[in-house]
Amino acid sequence: MFQKVLVANRGEIAVRVIRACRELGIRTVAVYSEADRDALHVKLADEAQYIGPAPSRESYLSVPAIITAAQATGADAVHPGYGFLAENAFFAEACEKWGLTFIGPRPDAIRQMGDKNQARELMRKAGVPVVPGSEGTVRSVDDALAVARQIGFPVLVKAAGGGGGRGIRIARSAEELAQAMERAASEAGAAFGTTDVYIEKYVEVARHIEVQVLGDAHGNIIHLGERECSLQRRRQKILEEAPAPTLSPEVRERIRQAGVAAARAVGYSNAGTVEFLYDESTGQFYFIEMNTRIQVEHPVTEMITSVDLVKEQIRVAAGQRLRLSQEDVQLRGAAIECRITAEDPDNRLLPSTGTVTAYEPPGGPWTRVDGMLYPGFKVMPHYDSLVGKLIVWGEDRSEAIARMERALGEFRIEGIRTSIPLHQRILASPEFREGRFHTEWLEQFLQLK
Amino acid sequence: MFQKVLVANRGEIAVRVIRACRELGIRTVAVYSEADRDALHVKLADEAQYIGPAPSRESYLSVPAIITAAQATGADAVHPGYGFLAENAFFAEACEKWGLTFIGPRPDAIRQMGDKNQARELMRKAGVPVVPGSEGTVRSVDDALAVARQIGFPVLVKAAGGGGGRGIRIARSAEELAQAMERAASEAGAAFGTTDVYIEKYVEVARHIEVQVLGDAHGNIIHLGERECSLQRRRQKILEEAPAPTLSPEVRERIRQAGVAAARAVGYSNAGTVEFLYDESTGQFYFIEMNTRIQVEHPVTEMITSVDLVKEQIRVAAGQRLRLSQEDVQLRGAAIECRITAEDPDNRLLPSTGTVTAYEPPGGPWTRVDGMLYPGFKVMPHYDSLVGKLIVWGEDRSEAIARMERALGEFRIEGIRTSIPLHQRILASPEFREGRFHTEWLEQFLQLK
Repeated sequence: MFQKVLVANRGEIAVRVIRACRELGIRTVAVYSEADRDALHVKLADEAQYIGPAPSRESYLSVPAIITAAQATGADAVHPGYGFLAENAFFAEACEKWGLTFIGPRPDAIRQMGDKNQARELMRKAGVPVVPGSEGTVRSVDDALAVARQIGFPVLVKAAGGGGGRGIRIARSAEELAQAMERAASEAGAAFGTTDVYIEKYVEVARHIEVQVLGDAHGNIIHLGERECSLQRRRQKILEEAPAPTLSPEVRERIRQAGVAAARAVGYSNAGTVEFLYDESTGQFYFIEMNTRIQVEHPVTEMITSVDLVKEQIRVAAGQRLRLSQEDVQLRGAAIECRITAEDPDNRLLPSTGTVTAYEPPGGPWTRVDGMLYPGFKVMPHYDSLVGKLIVWGEDRSEAIARMERALGEFRIEGIRTSIPLHQRILASPEFREGRFHTEWLEQFLQLK
Repeated sequence: MFQKVLVANRGEIAVRVIRACRELGIRTVAVYSEADRDALHVKLADEAQYIGPAPSRESYLSVPAIITAAQATGADAVHPGYGFLAENAFFAEACEKWGLTFIGPRPDAIRQMGDKNQARELMRKAGVPVVPGSEGTVRSVDDALAVARQIGFPVLVKAAGGGGGRGIRIARSAEELAQAMERAASEAGAAFGTTDVYIEKYVEVARHIEVQVLGDAHGNIIHLGERECSLQRRRQKILEEAPAPTLSPEVRERIRQAGVAAARAVGYSNAGTVEFLYDESTGQFYFIEMNTRIQVEHPVTEMITSVDLVKEQIRVAAGQRLRLSQEDVQLRGAAIECRITAEDPDNRLLPSTGTVTAYEPPGGPWTRVDGMLYPGFKVMPHYDSLVGKLIVWGEDRSEAIARMERALGEFRIEGIRTSIPLHQRILASPEFREGRFHTEWLEQFLQLK
């Protein structure tokens, strides 16, 4: 087992990884930017290394800064968390080159799944359904138009190097296609370093269902059930749950097996998530992408499976075999996660910054807070607005909803505005309670008010 | 189901019950003494009633004050929590008389188990092993001596009306017996209103093992496994766990069945705990008493069974049948609870009072805080020193220990002294880690330092 893990991240996920390491008896190194000197992850780690100014590319995205910090502290492994360098194959390779174990999949698996176009091809070959679209990159508007006419409008123009909802444009007609391509390519060029785009049928009314998988370096791959993550705003998930509440047993089993097949197709090891679009009207689901890292919403899976995903990541990265076979995975009850963001629900969810003057998280049974705030902490504008996650478990979905409402009602955060009232509105809505929603529902719901 | 429940208690258990009611959609009434105007249970309840001055007998122990508060607020049921009026059969009867459902067992079950002597007789008849001792009350020192000579010294002189570790004296020789009887009777007279005492063999090196039972008003009784509660100081539990770590499968099953048999012998409904002394050297266990209420340590059982005991209490009190059969109860993993008390571990654990200046509970996976503190709360000397409970779950005992150590290390309470450092010492000790302890171990361990 590792002696010392450097956590190449910040915020709640850095805290989460530090907690797992501490419980495993592994020493931890936090890294921090100028803006994060007083961050909770820095306080909780055994040691901390300054890695640069607040802008991410000069600190949390700087491969040399992170590698140097690992070497300076004698870390033998690096946990990348999510975001930042977590799905950067070059970083995973750099870790290996410098004698550090990257706690994640092999670089080639990151690379294959990172190229969304290549991933589609791989899935097609592995028999995992993909959204109808172009076979590979489209090089011209004419090519794109041919594909779009064949599969029917509306279509999505997607950056091959994209992910996390970025580099995507909708075209509802031939007229819109040229501009959509231009914009997607330009956004992709700036964000991902490649202007390659491809075309996919736009499945308008769909659910986002994703399958948690776990593999080891010995060829074993299992799934830990699926999550329902359709509640999104600007393609960012807001509230997630497990299991998906409305799947038929047959679709549920097929989508889980498709998740395992997808992971197997790239010889996947470590924790990963295979994302699908599910069209309820046809019963079809389609592979969207695989996230080759731990996800923000992993706790809902932990709560229904009793499996500590971050510890499993560490164990399999250290070469251990999976300790669970598929038959050992037993799902129980239902879990919901609300992402608590520093955003103003009364003002178009604009980022809210300031000093946290009061912070009183809820407690009690089956109520989990993965946080990063404390009284006196300054929320600054440099990073993503996620400041914590509230996760509850219930014996069924309706108990989980009641518990989440109870816990949100207790949660006291002062000094900044948060998304708590937004979650309360979602939870109170008949559509959410009855499970009648899809990926576009939340934005429609938010505009209603 | 009830419309409105009055919670006849304070502190963390009042908060716990309020949370359960809120999740069930039941309105809550908190009651508070002069000292508890700013207490968390008052803030979290839907409404609150002042019931009298700080001394418990003028407020939390006042049957008229509680009944009046229930009538004034239109409550239809009363949850007594633990302590105060929870095991007072007269109070349970008074509730009934005034049209309030008492959320607990029937008054006759409380009464039968409350008379420790009568309970012993009942258990004997039901085939549940009791500690060798007098058959009924001993009326004179001569009677006591005859019993003590028959079963052998040391013996315990116990108050028939006692409980919670009070009204008990040890006699190691005939010479000590008279004084022990006098003291036990006098303490019992003051505390319980009866001077009746009985004699029991003192099993010196024993474990305290207790079985959680749950019954409904339709004759169904199940157990939810056992708890190990041997870590005590002055007969007050400090740290509890579930399941008991060292029982053989055969003893474990026998003790669980004895718990069910004990409950069945009094036609028990609602949640209760059957306490046993377990003598590892002989493999024998003996009934000590039954607690006819929810217990402080109930969360460890909740964490390994996924059953919400407080909600089950409410459901069965409302006449519902148990929703679980014995076969449905599935235990998973291990849970530990540390009682966080406002006591100074560097000063003979004397009560510590003052204003809480910082309160930052731990978070993260499988980490539960049942609390009552918040920044600015004043801990006063009027009540028991319990100010919260930290409970963790792990896939096995060793993970639970590591998680508890991690969580205790994160727990920040300033302005008062707490038992957190004491728990850290216990958790670090080889005896605790290896499960080598008994009911006297902790006091010996504390004297070592």
